[in-house]
Amino acid sequence: MEHASPRVLNPDALRDLMERLLAAAGCGPEAAMAAADVLLEADLRGYGTHGLIRLPAMVRRIQSGMINPRARPRVVEERDASALVDADRAMGPVGVIFGASLAARKAERSGCCAVGVVNCDHICMAGYYAERIARTGLVGLVAGVTQPLVHALGGAERLLGTNPLAIALPREDGRPLLLDFATSEVAFGAVLQAKARGETLRPGVAVGPDGAPTTDPVQAAAGALAPFGGHRGYGLCLFLGLLAGPLLGAKVGKPLGQAVREGHYDKGELVIAIDPAAFGDPREFRRAAAAHVEEVKASRKAPGASAIRVPGERSQGERGRRLREGVPIEEAVWAEVASLAGELKVAAPS
Amino acid sequence: MEHASPRVLNPDALRDLMERLLAAAGCGPEAAMAAADVLLEADLRGYGTHGLIRLPAMVRRIQSGMINPRARPRVVEERDASALVDADRAMGPVGVIFGASLAARKAERSGCCAVGVVNCDHICMAGYYAERIARTGLVGLVAGVTQPLVHALGGAERLLGTNPLAIALPREDGRPLLLDFATSEVAFGAVLQAKARGETLRPGVAVGPDGAPTTDPVQAAAGALAPFGGHRGYGLCLFLGLLAGPLLGAKVGKPLGQAVREGHYDKGELVIAIDPAAFGDPREFRRAAAAHVEEVKASRKAPGASAIRVPGERSQGERGRRLREGVPIEEAVWAEVASLAGELKVAAPS
Repeated sequence: MEHASPRVLNPDALRDLMERLLAAAGCGPEAAMAAADVLLEADLRGYGTHGLIRLPAMVRRIQSGMINPRARPRVVEERDASALVDADRAMGPVGVIFGASLAARKAERSGCCAVGVVNCDHICMAGYYAERIARTGLVGLVAGVTQPLVHALGGAERLLGTNPLAIALPREDGRPLLLDFATSEVAFGAVLQAKARGETLRPGVAVGPDGAPTTDPVQAAAGALAPFGGHRGYGLCLFLGLLAGPLLGAKVGKPLGQAVREGHYDKGELVIAIDPAAFGDPREFRRAAAAHVEEVKASRKAPGASAIRVPGERSQGERGRRLREGVPIEEAVWAEVASLAGELKVAAPS
Repeated sequence: MEHASPRVLNPDALRDLMERLLAAAGCGPEAAMAAADVLLEADLRGYGTHGLIRLPAMVRRIQSGMINPRARPRVVEERDASALVDADRAMGPVGVIFGASLAARKAERSGCCAVGVVNCDHICMAGYYAERIARTGLVGLVAGVTQPLVHALGGAERLLGTNPLAIALPREDGRPLLLDFATSEVAFGAVLQAKARGETLRPGVAVGPDGAPTTDPVQAAAGALAPFGGHRGYGLCLFLGLLAGPLLGAKVGKPLGQAVREGHYDKGELVIAIDPAAFGDPREFRRAAAAHVEEVKASRKAPGASAIRVPGERSQGERGRRLREGVPIEEAVWAEVASLAGELKVAAPS
């Protein structure tokens, strides 16, 4: 997973550092806590491209005025089972935690609710918000759109986002079953990571600026990522972009890329919450879902396969290990964070 | 697409034949009309494995009592933005058309609505129902679960369904933009088709009963299909099964396979409708979505690619052609239908 990384941080120390950096950049305590919690969750689960590594850019966006560190998300349209939230240029976690809580609250009454969140920054990890909903006993779905980085099937140009989809289901033990993926073959962060490390990419995950397939991360970073899963994955990527962008009055494709360059991350997230109690006994749902997961895990393995995993299993295992043993942080990431800490006069753990 | 098929039927004659066969099997006029419309749409779009070919099995299930040809779906649980429909052992189209209409009607008021439909037979084409919702100006999503035919990632046993997902978005011209796919690498019907034709399968789409990859459709038909798209597609397949099965109080996995063998197709479909007007100006949504589709289609092509298509484009083209030129029907399918027509004393077009 992680490259040779001698530096290992205690999760509490890491959280504290993140919160203090965000506070020093101008965030109120609740906003800093929300953003640090999402970034820490990403780092705990081994999504090294979505954790602390993102913090310096968030601070730069606060400094440039693109992010409002004191944002107050508010509901601008509302019906019994829907709402549109204008997040007031908040950090992603502030906007989408607000939206997810609202969706869950309204779905508990109405059975289902769709909330659109617009006008906030990068959300880091779509699954985080879906899980929050599932922890209240509901089903949570989050669809997002990002600036264009992915080409169409048969295409060579960046036009689609890495548009994530997350679905979380409540479980008896309180730890949701989570599916969380980007609809590109690899995350853009993984390309940048490979570039920094001088590694090559798997074949089939990207094209260069000339549109030809490449395994060179330098070419890929200037080119476009492939959508996952052939025509199905490409279609899902395209449709998620339309649901999280234009459906919510936000942008997608080149106009979104243009907006980002002009300092406004004009995209959206669509959050859907569904109350299992609207369809029957929620305990029976959790029991039957757990039984299916168990029969899948216990089923006959393909020749050569070591284990059958279900979504989220590997990252949950990683999370447990890192909570005990600490979070490895790459030197390049640490150097940037330490420099930022110096600039903001925040003490960094040694 | 279709194999050498000398027989071409006029779409109106095909619809009429389907309706008369279903009526002769005991369906009321509305039920026969609903089922024939779905089967015809599948045949028109070139989904030869989901059209007329399915009708003889539907009639057998009516005759065996598994399908109730006079079923009256009814709402058994209801909130402002949700409903559970017991379809009374209806044919799939009867149950899910009822559920989709209900979801659309409630979403127009509440902004969003999730309807579960249980206790109906095979739905043939999930996209049909999503499109019905989109034709009323709403966004339609349909998730289904089928009896186990697909193995887990790293697994070798049939445990997951070919669980379809369909998303339809309204368009200015009234013809929805439709994404509609099964989460297996190929449809089980395509395996049976290859078996009947003595063809081989693409590598990577199935395993035999021993769990080893196979391109032999005989082995595949006795084995299991691969989920599409690696860990993402596998995860989506698994989660759709939980949403369309246990969430709705229906079965999934081996218990669903067992129920089918005992004569009860105890699965569900989850239908979600979202009203774009709940988030802003629906015309602006349709305009921005169309613009994104256009920029994708007009974008630079990869070396060697002939065109960039969006989901549903190929099948819409096929539909137009078949409406004009007729629907090719394979001889084996026709022989079975003609024999059934003789049995039911229904005149078949010559």
